[in-house]
Amino acid sequence: MKKRPLILITNDDGITAPGIRTLISVMNEIGDVVVVAPDSPQSGMGHAITLDSTIYCDAVTIDEGMQLEYRCSGTPADCVKMAISEILNKRPDLCVSGVNHGSNSSINVIYSGTMSAAIEAGIEGIPAIGFSLLDYSWHGNFDGLRGDIKKIALKVLEHGLPDGIVLNVNFPKLVNGDFKGIKICRQARANWVEEFDKRVNPQGKEYYWLTGKFVDLDHGEDTDVWALKNKYVSLVPVQFDLTAHQYIKKLNSWDL
Amino acid sequence: MKKRPLILITNDDGITAPGIRTLISVMNEIGDVVVVAPDSPQSGMGHAITLDSTIYCDAVTIDEGMQLEYRCSGTPADCVKMAISEILNKRPDLCVSGVNHGSNSSINVIYSGTMSAAIEAGIEGIPAIGFSLLDYSWHGNFDGLRGDIKKIALKVLEHGLPDGIVLNVNFPKLVNGDFKGIKICRQARANWVEEFDKRVNPQGKEYYWLTGKFVDLDHGEDTDVWALKNKYVSLVPVQFDLTAHQYIKKLNSWDL
Repeated sequence: MKKRPLILITNDDGITAPGIRTLISVMNEIGDVVVVAPDSPQSGMGHAITLDSTIYCDAVTIDEGMQLEYRCSGTPADCVKMAISEILNKRPDLCVSGVNHGSNSSINVIYSGTMSAAIEAGIEGIPAIGFSLLDYSWHGNFDGLRGDIKKIALKVLEHGLPDGIVLNVNFPKLVNGDFKGIKICRQARANWVEEFDKRVNPQGKEYYWLTGKFVDLDHGEDTDVWALKNKYVSLVPVQFDLTAHQYIKKLNSWDL
Repeated sequence: MKKRPLILITNDDGITAPGIRTLISVMNEIGDVVVVAPDSPQSGMGHAITLDSTIYCDAVTIDEGMQLEYRCSGTPADCVKMAISEILNKRPDLCVSGVNHGSNSSINVIYSGTMSAAIEAGIEGIPAIGFSLLDYSWHGNFDGLRGDIKKIALKVLEHGLPDGIVLNVNFPKLVNGDFKGIKICRQARANWVEEFDKRVNPQGKEYYWLTGKFVDLDHGEDTDVWALKNKYVSLVPVQFDLTAHQYIKKLNSWDL
């Protein structure tokens, strides 16, 4: 019998979030699972790492299941570093992050703690996938994602991923009916138009809450935003070589 | 006479850091400067944004100079959002971030608060440049960078930058002699090999400090790491469409 793969799981909503509990339950069907996840929510942390303060990391038991679990005071990227460097005694065959409570499609990938963990694993040469559901609710329907999560994870274990590439998978929020299928996409061009909510604290000092409106600037039908709007699961291959190679020649003509 | 450009300045080392003070002084020679920068160091913050807590932002005066200045309790990306949405009454012609105390070459771009600010401006469609010096010291030789910073900023104001691209400029630390020039580069393939420093706190509980060793995996002579080692200023065009376009066709053959 082929050896069971070692699967590292993390997220950015914290180790007790329903999204990661579902992911753990699915991965237990596939391999040996080790969870190293933040002890508190880390949404919007981007690819932050902890340089100026200490990191705690403790073995915990959250529910039944065969997985080993550790809760970590660091960011999602810290969790992956900690797992690889301190906790695991061999390299994982796969790292999965999520399931995030909320979208990481389009430009959200830049701000995403979920995807930063997947990218961190990718930097370490480990095949990695970030999963997200377009539902911010704590009680979203994560059970409905089990089949597709398992299918995608098994495909990655079968094919591997090339150096420098990880996968960003987003699920639409469906009230009735099923997903239309999985669609390979590119990241849609979009941004957030910020609307800071200015308030006054009890001491009379002004402060702000960051809020915003997502604006899709892209009319392509090959984007993740289009796929999600049309009830497809979106899958975007993500790279962390940020070089705009096509622009190097032009810059060389600037005579700097 | 042509109108003076409006220049937004931020960083991740905090508004009082010598790196940003030099950048402000150089930009005052070119245009009208508004500074919106973190009130405390934010290194390693990646593209974090503040979702779960309040943000304060106050007008301050740090030194003489014509610039307007605001210190902000948020991350570098928050500072750019705050500047565009709340502080400036017109769009800046240029956003410059830094000068960072320490390298943002190679994979460091992923963890960099300095570059996250430049990328945030780029997402908003503003030409943007991140500057960094390969010297972590508070008292690095920032004055020696003035000429090249000014030259690159003026070129960007002259040519603009295409949608979706910002510049990542790193300066080598030179003890004697001058830079050999500015070299247009790609991001070197490299990673950090973590070495967590495990300690025990006064209450007997184990904790960690994140430390690591930078490992250059790239033998190319067209990378930023190579340029910096060879006394060139490196300039990498950076994109925030993270799609690995070249891999989409392959994924479509996976039969998902």
